[in-house]
Amino acid sequence: MKQFTSIKDVDNLTDLLAIAKKCKETPYQYQHLGKNKTLGLLFFNASLRTRLSTQKAAFNLGMQVMTMNIDKEGWQLELEEGAIMNQQSQEHIKEAAQVLSQYCDCIGIRAFASLEDRTKDYEEHLLQKFIQYSSVPIISLESATRHPLQGFTDLLTIEEHKKHSRPKVVLTWAPHPKPLPQAVANSFVAWMQQAEVELVITHPKGFELTPSVTQQTPVVYDQEEAFQEADFIYAKNWSTYAPYGQVGVDLSHWMIDTAKMALTNQAYFMHCLPVRRNVVVEDAVLDAPTALHIAQANNRTYAAQAVLLKFLQDD
Amino acid sequence: MKQFTSIKDVDNLTDLLAIAKKCKETPYQYQHLGKNKTLGLLFFNASLRTRLSTQKAAFNLGMQVMTMNIDKEGWQLELEEGAIMNQQSQEHIKEAAQVLSQYCDCIGIRAFASLEDRTKDYEEHLLQKFIQYSSVPIISLESATRHPLQGFTDLLTIEEHKKHSRPKVVLTWAPHPKPLPQAVANSFVAWMQQAEVELVITHPKGFELTPSVTQQTPVVYDQEEAFQEADFIYAKNWSTYAPYGQVGVDLSHWMIDTAKMALTNQAYFMHCLPVRRNVVVEDAVLDAPTALHIAQANNRTYAAQAVLLKFLQDD
Amino acid sequence: MKQFTSIKDVDNLTDLLAIAKKCKETPYQYQHLGKNKTLGLLFFNASLRTRLSTQKAAFNLGMQVMTMNIDKEGWQLELEEGAIMNQQSQEHIKEAAQVLSQYCDCIGIRAFASLEDRTKDYEEHLLQKFIQYSSVPIISLESATRHPLQGFTDLLTIEEHKKHSRPKVVLTWAPHPKPLPQAVANSFVAWMQQAEVELVITHPKGFELTPSVTQQTPVVYDQEEAFQEADFIYAKNWSTYAPYGQVGVDLSHWMIDTAKMALTNQAYFMHCLPVRRNVVVEDAVLDAPTALHIAQANNRTYAAQAVLLKFLQDD
Repeated sequence: MKQFTSIKDVDNLTDLLAIAKKCKETPYQYQHLGKNKTLGLLFFNASLRTRLSTQKAAFNLGMQVMTMNIDKEGWQLELEEGAIMNQQSQEHIKEAAQVLSQYCDCIGIRAFASLEDRTKDYEEHLLQKFIQYSSVPIISLESATRHPLQGFTDLLTIEEHKKHSRPKVVLTWAPHPKPLPQAVANSFVAWMQQAEVELVITHPKGFELTPSVTQQTPVVYDQEEAFQEADFIYAKNWSTYAPYGQVGVDLSHWMIDTAKMALTNQAYFMHCLPVRRNVVVEDAVLDAPTALHIAQANNRTYAAQAVLLKFLQDD
Repeated sequence: MKQFTSIKDVDNLTDLLAIAKKCKETPYQYQHLGKNKTLGLLFFNASLRTRLSTQKAAFNLGMQVMTMNIDKEGWQLELEEGAIMNQQSQEHIKEAAQVLSQYCDCIGIRAFASLEDRTKDYEEHLLQKFIQYSSVPIISLESATRHPLQGFTDLLTIEEHKKHSRPKVVLTWAPHPKPLPQAVANSFVAWMQQAEVELVITHPKGFELTPSVTQQTPVVYDQEEAFQEADFIYAKNWSTYAPYGQVGVDLSHWMIDTAKMALTNQAYFMHCLPVRRNVVVEDAVLDAPTALHIAQANNRTYAAQAVLLKFLQDD
Repeated sequence: MKQFTSIKDVDNLTDLLAIAKKCKETPYQYQHLGKNKTLGLLFFNASLRTRLSTQKAAFNLGMQVMTMNIDKEGWQLELEEGAIMNQQSQEHIKEAAQVLSQYCDCIGIRAFASLEDRTKDYEEHLLQKFIQYSSVPIISLESATRHPLQGFTDLLTIEEHKKHSRPKVVLTWAPHPKPLPQAVANSFVAWMQQAEVELVITHPKGFELTPSVTQQTPVVYDQEEAFQEADFIYAKNWSTYAPYGQVGVDLSHWMIDTAKMALTNQAYFMHCLPVRRNVVVEDAVLDAPTALHIAQANNRTYAAQAVLLKFLQDD
């Protein structure tokens, strides 16, 4: 595995899942591989789970970690080729990526979508530039349009909790007061499409994900219909793809509540966190024993550890 | 010891003091206990001594440390049960505490008093919520109304420097341009009440601490009278308890100076730091060999190490 | 070596260079020396290379690292003796330096020039105060008027790449939209003056460095004349020394481009980074195989490691 920015980077998903489970069982057994190896974590945006679970994963592997809020603690980066840098940007990503590759054996990057320029977001402009100039493996800590560590975690969590071989998994849009990226939804769909599940997407009209992500996955516009017989309900807000980055109006009836959960096959509830309680989902759903959001957050450590371990083994 | 948020959490103070002294003598002898254990340090407020001494304590024990300015680097936390989170707060403390408990074997939290809502401050609203949802030991790095690591450090420092078995220890209010919490004063009183000392409090009228803290400890409103025969002068500003969070006017004559120190039994001078020179205390007092503020700061490492070690031993 | 704030602190430059080369060859062989030793890194300003390369250097030596954005995460420091601290500053550097010396075995500090008060900048007011009150070795991570780790790195890089025994090294001023400190230029000159090189400085009139730095080093005001037969071109912007801290107007023709590089003896191009592309230097120069800026950044790790190793060996 050369990098981890999308499920497309995974050579063998079954193998990677098995490694994650192994890491969860015996987290410290690979520390000889991480000795004298350094993970750099670069954040352009806020993070709690990703920041700490990825550090923890590296510690479990005996690695050292250097964390940076790169935009606040370092220099403002220029992304454009040929730019005349006489304005705000102080350092070109060409230099930053090459330099950081010399200090780190692996680099994690979090850079959210702008939600302003869809083309650049979906080209993964910043991440791709960084990959282009980096000489070490890059691990996405959520990029403009994907959050593969979350997708991997979600798959691992469903694998652990599924009650039959081909569970029905429903990705449901949920309300949120602010425009959010499509990254988590895109990655969840992509990882579920590779899993032994029956995936259904439900969202209000106008919130269609890009067809290149949705592909053949059925979309049901009636949320209650979609919930029928579901084994897993995965809630997430995202803003519109076309026009780009809009929030809906008066869609609060899309909030997940116990009445909707009652339509399912005693489904587990999932969310990537952070979650706005009583906006995205009712307290009662999150506080029920069927809620998996805390278990998902725990699995973030082992998803990250599996990816880092693959890099160390390939090194 | 389940947590460390107040002297009330300490099962055996003599034992804890002995452990701190042992840690100071041979700091590295317990590293096998900290191996693969992770300390999370969460800061809602500025910190220098606490941030670094607690890290150092963890390193001495062979632990890994993850430090976060949680309000700036993570998500804004919601504390209220049942809140409809459609405003500024992005993540409920329920989730944050449960999630962090999975990445850390112990969590330290610094969250100062608001000085606006006395009831919530004295209920230790944020800290208690965090404890409620955490599944690992919590160590207070200064909460709204207590700073137990400082109280423990101060006791350790007095134990090291006392010249006779029952020294006179004076907690004196001192001037400051801004309203400060009562946390350090509250904890100093609580820890001294458990020690073999004669404790006296002196402050201007109106600066009474809460009676539940002061209890039977004598309060002398005449600072010079209080200083008579003192062996230790502990200076600290705090804002008023009732009405809550006010600074006094024209109280600069409460500054500690050499003339006042001359009234004592060649007393040591103590302060928790940071200290505003020539406002709280005169340069000449801080620069004299009887000043213990640097020694106190050093003992912060061993106070924290003793607490962490107790957690590791109980684990 | 008691401290590392200038080339004047280096007892034996040949020895220090040899240590850096040794560290680069076998980075992990000295880890027994760094065990249970802690490096504190204090930043008053932005940093990418220095922050990460110095951490990496410490990790290579088996040291622990505590990094702080001291002005944002700690307290505002007072530098003046005798100050009545009733304004913005919250902690005196006397206390900060003494306290930090107890938590760290070595302290690195980055504090850029104010560019407002030349006397205080050139007296290295903050750094000297810190050194005065610290009881452990101080390593400059760029102070007001010097960047010795960069100077050392540059010397190491030139040593590695020189094609004959006494190369011609040209320090050339280059354009920049904002006023920058003279620190990198000052240190480059100071380190080159101790090296086996022919050093020439070129800059527009009015951009003379202080004579105490320049000494006998020739200054050529014609950039193209200076570039003749050069083996190394080191580009850097700096603001004026007298009057202090000014930028020039309409000096964009001082940008380094391929036409100017063609005047040299196939010179290597060097820059300390971050660099503003197409303002300081043309893309084509930075993207040519003769550009050493990435190699320089790599050597920052080994320069820092050599300095830290000297401190550990002298301990």
